[in-house]
Amino acid sequence: MISKQEITDRFKIIQNSICNSLEQEDGLSGFHEDIWERLEGGGGISRVLENGAMIEKGGVNFSAVFGETPDNIKQAFGYSSGEFYATGVSIVLHPINPFVPIIHMNIRYFEMNDGTWWFGGGIDLTPHYIDREDASFFHKSLKNVCDKHHESFYHKFKQWADDYFYIKHRNETRGIGGLFFDRLNASGSKLALFNFVEDVGNSFTPIYQKISRKNKEKSFSERERNWQLIRRGRYVEFNLVLDRGTKFGLETNGRTESILMSLPPLAAWNYNFTPEENSPEYETLSLLKKDIKWINS
Amino acid sequence: MISKQEITDRFKIIQNSICNSLEQEDGLSGFHEDIWERLEGGGGISRVLENGAMIEKGGVNFSAVFGETPDNIKQAFGYSSGEFYATGVSIVLHPINPFVPIIHMNIRYFEMNDGTWWFGGGIDLTPHYIDREDASFFHKSLKNVCDKHHESFYHKFKQWADDYFYIKHRNETRGIGGLFFDRLNASGSKLALFNFVEDVGNSFTPIYQKISRKNKEKSFSERERNWQLIRRGRYVEFNLVLDRGTKFGLETNGRTESILMSLPPLAAWNYNFTPEENSPEYETLSLLKKDIKWINS
Repeated sequence: MISKQEITDRFKIIQNSICNSLEQEDGLSGFHEDIWERLEGGGGISRVLENGAMIEKGGVNFSAVFGETPDNIKQAFGYSSGEFYATGVSIVLHPINPFVPIIHMNIRYFEMNDGTWWFGGGIDLTPHYIDREDASFFHKSLKNVCDKHHESFYHKFKQWADDYFYIKHRNETRGIGGLFFDRLNASGSKLALFNFVEDVGNSFTPIYQKISRKNKEKSFSERERNWQLIRRGRYVEFNLVLDRGTKFGLETNGRTESILMSLPPLAAWNYNFTPEENSPEYETLSLLKKDIKWINS
Repeated sequence: MISKQEITDRFKIIQNSICNSLEQEDGLSGFHEDIWERLEGGGGISRVLENGAMIEKGGVNFSAVFGETPDNIKQAFGYSSGEFYATGVSIVLHPINPFVPIIHMNIRYFEMNDGTWWFGGGIDLTPHYIDREDASFFHKSLKNVCDKHHESFYHKFKQWADDYFYIKHRNETRGIGGLFFDRLNASGSKLALFNFVEDVGNSFTPIYQKISRKNKEKSFSERERNWQLIRRGRYVEFNLVLDRGTKFGLETNGRTESILMSLPPLAAWNYNFTPEENSPEYETLSLLKKDIKWINS
């Protein structure tokens, strides 16, 4: 049985290792660190990198918070009282080059003082321009991580991501999905689930390294930059209108600047922008759908 | 007693008159019009102006929708069934010059087929840089409109605007407030309330004309532009996280591009941006508070 303290420590290690490799990869800019405390218990380490060589804005946050359970968690989970403990790592990167995708990864552990516990998390890719080869590589890598732990995981969590990262009012997915899971629990196998979650966390660096190295030197013009800004606008819509984590953070008086590090450095809303038929933007839009099998056989 | 048809027609006249004067005022760019229909009944006329001489992006929308009452309206107002009718005009303007404020105005009428009816609406100003003279003029103009109809209106609706246009997670008001009112009803005096609401609608043009003419030629640099983009980011946060009209529209499958015309053409999120003490940006931030008396005696 792994303890919450061990989980917390291993999550911190993941934050450090991701930050180190991102700094090396970016070369130009380092992370700015803010250590914050939560009045009611716990706190976090927020790290944000701005104006790098490859990353325009990116955040890699760690937090471990605890105390009397906030009312809306109690409501959501059917508790009338009790103390909670929650720890997690959360990443969003907005690259400069429109041919490099936005990426998000989150892993989290939650427990109540009555012994109830679960893991949640996910990883999803939001290309401004979808490259089928990259999409296939991304999903294959995630399937490999999943298959090591349970044969049903990839299928189940891929579908969950399609449903979760869906912008209803646009009838578009946020990107090409990935994995999403919540309230993962299996009596007696906390360590096994932790190992899976840790593997998801550790998959981040090699996956993003490969995709960003392949695309970050591609040349682009104002046209691709404008489209990137519009897609970032959709990212803002998802995060502010639909994302449960963002909503939860803002409603429970989390640290606003840490929660909203996920928002892009710059985003655009052109009225009723419609890409020309058969343009690369049009092709991408046509692939922002649920239930696409991204893995080439 | 004024009929829903008359109210609808007079709202359309307000849309036309505001669009005409804005086009004249801007000089460079005209409104693009989209007429849309709602599957379940009714529709609207959306007008958006982009890349003008003064207006970077602005929308002036009219709609009149009806039919079987959507579930969430029924829930909110305690109906189990019935048909509704709703009509309104809604404006948001994002100017190019950071010294010209963002402005929003909305007037709406709602009725159920059991005879229940009410008016709602408001007008509020979001300066990127607060000019106390302009703020005083804005509130004095609104007080004049209110005082013609009821001595309690200005005080009541100004306070309501302070409470409504408040970004909780930032501990900031959206701007300097103005008027906000909802579910206004008084048996037997529908016409009197309509006259008030129409006066609010008609106050838009002279108020914004005066404030924009005073400021639109002021020179500005990248510093003021960046601050404008950050304040626009806050505007996005308010509209997507908190605004009831936006939420309602997105949840009831309204026309997304018409609802989100309120979002700025371009917005920025710099991590933890903090203006230098005693800078103009700092001064503005210190005035984004509730309960400020803006009218100079």
